[in-house]
Amino acid sequence: MSPEIVTAPLASREARPAGTVVRTGGVDVGGPAVVVFAGSCAVEDEEQILSAARAVKAAGARVLRGGAYKPRTSPYSFPGLKEAGLNLLARARAETGLPVVTEVMDARHLEQVMACADILQVGSRNMQNVTLLEEVGRCRVPVLLKRGMSATLAEYLLAAEHVMKGGNGQIILCERGIRTFEPSTRNTLDLSAVPMLNRHTHLPVIVDPSHGTGLAWMVPSMACAAVAAGADGLLMEVHGQPSGALSDGGQALTFEEFAGAMAQIAAVASAVGRSVS
Amino acid sequence: MSPEIVTAPLASREARPAGTVVRTGGVDVGGPAVVVFAGSCAVEDEEQILSAARAVKAAGARVLRGGAYKPRTSPYSFPGLKEAGLNLLARARAETGLPVVTEVMDARHLEQVMACADILQVGSRNMQNVTLLEEVGRCRVPVLLKRGMSATLAEYLLAAEHVMKGGNGQIILCERGIRTFEPSTRNTLDLSAVPMLNRHTHLPVIVDPSHGTGLAWMVPSMACAAVAAGADGLLMEVHGQPSGALSDGGQALTFEEFAGAMAQIAAVASAVGRSVS
Amino acid sequence: MSPEIVTAPLASREARPAGTVVRTGGVDVGGPAVVVFAGSCAVEDEEQILSAARAVKAAGARVLRGGAYKPRTSPYSFPGLKEAGLNLLARARAETGLPVVTEVMDARHLEQVMACADILQVGSRNMQNVTLLEEVGRCRVPVLLKRGMSATLAEYLLAAEHVMKGGNGQIILCERGIRTFEPSTRNTLDLSAVPMLNRHTHLPVIVDPSHGTGLAWMVPSMACAAVAAGADGLLMEVHGQPSGALSDGGQALTFEEFAGAMAQIAAVASAVGRSVS
Amino acid sequence: MSPEIVTAPLASREARPAGTVVRTGGVDVGGPAVVVFAGSCAVEDEEQILSAARAVKAAGARVLRGGAYKPRTSPYSFPGLKEAGLNLLARARAETGLPVVTEVMDARHLEQVMACADILQVGSRNMQNVTLLEEVGRCRVPVLLKRGMSATLAEYLLAAEHVMKGGNGQIILCERGIRTFEPSTRNTLDLSAVPMLNRHTHLPVIVDPSHGTGLAWMVPSMACAAVAAGADGLLMEVHGQPSGALSDGGQALTFEEFAGAMAQIAAVASAVGRSVS
Repeated sequence: MSPEIVTAPLASREARPAGTVVRTGGVDVGGPAVVVFAGSCAVEDEEQILSAARAVKAAGARVLRGGAYKPRTSPYSFPGLKEAGLNLLARARAETGLPVVTEVMDARHLEQVMACADILQVGSRNMQNVTLLEEVGRCRVPVLLKRGMSATLAEYLLAAEHVMKGGNGQIILCERGIRTFEPSTRNTLDLSAVPMLNRHTHLPVIVDPSHGTGLAWMVPSMACAAVAAGADGLLMEVHGQPSGALSDGGQALTFEEFAGAMAQIAAVASAVGRSVS
Repeated sequence: MSPEIVTAPLASREARPAGTVVRTGGVDVGGPAVVVFAGSCAVEDEEQILSAARAVKAAGARVLRGGAYKPRTSPYSFPGLKEAGLNLLARARAETGLPVVTEVMDARHLEQVMACADILQVGSRNMQNVTLLEEVGRCRVPVLLKRGMSATLAEYLLAAEHVMKGGNGQIILCERGIRTFEPSTRNTLDLSAVPMLNRHTHLPVIVDPSHGTGLAWMVPSMACAAVAAGADGLLMEVHGQPSGALSDGGQALTFEEFAGAMAQIAAVASAVGRSVS
Repeated sequence: MSPEIVTAPLASREARPAGTVVRTGGVDVGGPAVVVFAGSCAVEDEEQILSAARAVKAAGARVLRGGAYKPRTSPYSFPGLKEAGLNLLARARAETGLPVVTEVMDARHLEQVMACADILQVGSRNMQNVTLLEEVGRCRVPVLLKRGMSATLAEYLLAAEHVMKGGNGQIILCERGIRTFEPSTRNTLDLSAVPMLNRHTHLPVIVDPSHGTGLAWMVPSMACAAVAAGADGLLMEVHGQPSGALSDGGQALTFEEFAGAMAQIAAVASAVGRSVS
Repeated sequence: MSPEIVTAPLASREARPAGTVVRTGGVDVGGPAVVVFAGSCAVEDEEQILSAARAVKAAGARVLRGGAYKPRTSPYSFPGLKEAGLNLLARARAETGLPVVTEVMDARHLEQVMACADILQVGSRNMQNVTLLEEVGRCRVPVLLKRGMSATLAEYLLAAEHVMKGGNGQIILCERGIRTFEPSTRNTLDLSAVPMLNRHTHLPVIVDPSHGTGLAWMVPSMACAAVAAGADGLLMEVHGQPSGALSDGGQALTFEEFAGAMAQIAAVASAVGRSVS
């Protein structure tokens, strides 16, 4: 009735029972603390990303997220600032000291992205882009590998295995919602993925309640639920003015909302024996 | 991209902004406390249900669950003890003082079930059994209405509306997992249903992590996550000897595991400003 | 990767390798001919159902469908004419000679429904209403058992098994679309259910492209596809004036469209070695 | 209840009401004839691909399929013969005269693949690999773009729009099954996608019943159903010895089964006013 997932040899819990801690820029993901990655879906301009970086740092985030290369469903949507966006991320990192995670869509951009990023994000649409997985597997930089929109957990671990087989074991997994019949949320956040992955792999697991729900008002509740379920971290979207965002504004928290959410998250983290950051 | 659900007039939050508290046997569901409903999937014999009732009471549960009429997928599975099961539930209630919730599968059993039950459960398979909804709508007993396996939240609220239109507003909603493509869990527990329902209806919302995951080892984590998401209660399966259970043993906690889970749940409830029981 | 379904002993193909032919009112379902069941979703008034009955008979349908008891998602939708609707169906049967299929929602209506119906329909919402399955299992009237909205084929066969265990083996199965993430059609018509059921059960299998797609313009194509996939029959909605229908008008064909569809269906039936009638 | 899909401007039916015919190697896809693409999932060795090419040509297929670069779920599965496989495809093309379709997984392989292929396949895993879509959009070679495993039809058309925006309008769409809760088939073949796409885009639409079901015995029925639904072509897997295939043998037809299926397909094509060729 409920077959549990079959794991991949390199990624499986058996391969490293104590668990993997991914270290970058002074931050440990997979250790005792819950790590919050926050920032905007897309880097829009200098003022926007710098103000967001300062605000999320002040509220306790430890990693800055921001999209420079954006794989969009429509070719008419904002595709990101690309190289200019990477440079703005580098500036935000220099000012705040926060390590940066940003998406790499194409192996040909890897060198450029690695010059500005501390963690390489492989997005949901590319979870089974095998040659990209192989290329990031050859890098010596941590990888944030998001679950595909309809990937089973077994397939997800095999995608991580593609990266590990290349020699890169610094992988952070991220549940970000799956496709279901329910239309009221953008995706259905599958929080049972957290304990299931914790049981079957040694890799740290974080949760993205912003993409997982698509609804900013719901993000704080689901962020708390993710921490209660055992997540090692959170990936959250924050924007100085969500209604004017160039991408996914409906799911971004304001700076004030984010600070409020961090307090709730910290309380829940404490209840399950962890701290935030 | 993410249309929010349309509510039903009687069940909608607008109809009663302060929320509904369902009261039964001295227990308030939908009030400040998180209420735990626990017991076995099926009533099997006197010793089994009495020991379970004592154990869950001792650990802090406030409502006893137990199935006497069991709608089973296969006609060859254990269908429950029926009337004899109801009598055993009445005995457990008399001894422990816990109010009882049990399923009613057919309007023709209503009188019999109401003689022993404090709360009438309408199961997932009957969420759109319209004449049964109408009949429990005519009763003056609280109803625990479980979400259908692939019911949208809009359809779920309309099922509650069928009951309310009959005059019975004492309804407790229960998220219990939905059908998705993911095979590693029995169902996918949709915890975003909790904040979404809290926003759109005044009815209290509880969560069943036992059916929602089908895996006993995962139940405590997901129970904590449900409380962090804002659930008003939990429905959990407990069995003196899960491996020998006549129904769904793989998802039942032992008495010791249940007591341990209750401690974790209480800590998370406190972190979100609530107590347990 | 692709486990095939496990069947139920009474319903399984092994129990009757040559297949079951369900006979009613001079019509054989499961024999060499493809049988078309047509009519309106709901019986609305005498003129409406009589004109529909005449039109579908003239175009080659062999069974008249019409809903008198309608289980609706919302308590505010038209619930059917109930007993008055049954009487109108009886009148349409008397005039046209077409046998009638209509839904029974509640065991307490069985006697009344059997007085007017040649085939008892158990709808998708009641596919796991176990006591209703048991009751129609005690009848000696053919049953049209529709697949639940998210029932696996294994669960579907077990629902048929509930009926057969009661002693009634005259069951017609009906694929009517399943719940998926795709929003452009009302449901996703799962035509692979036809060969899969044909392999695993001896019961005849028909397809409902009207509910399966929710879009009248798409019904003729999908009806042809169902016949090409091996369906023993079709269940189609027809209405004299779809835009004025009290229920599901968007999926009903006009009389002219239905006659046109029948010609296409006959051509495909002939291509796969069958006739329509 | 059933919103129809919104199309993309370049791909939409309005942009070219008469429809697009994709021409390659003397074959018209999207014209009056149903075109069969057949071959093996992976190119394994010279004897295997040459015998398959001869067999499918003899039975009436017009395009040879064969995978040289195979994006596999597991890094431990056969990844294809890569460049050597392309050379074998070129040899099969030279001998039989059949145009060749093969997958391109990475923009860096494009030149190599185009040297041997007449049609570039973008696989399901890469349907939203935006930079790959852009690169094939710059080519002047037809593209076979497979639907993603859980792509809505609206998203699918936007993926085609990414290619068209680059200047390449020679695109063939391919329904290949979607992810659902049903476990008895590998995927659920969504044949309603055929009339829906035909209504909303001018691009030709073919169907892959091999991946869509994962079960060789079911392929002929579903191929016939696809043609009855209006498909412009079929993509089918054939292998000299399916039980020994290095990839997806369970869904491959033997040469004899394929020849038998072609006769059935031709009969259905004729019934809907088309030929096979």
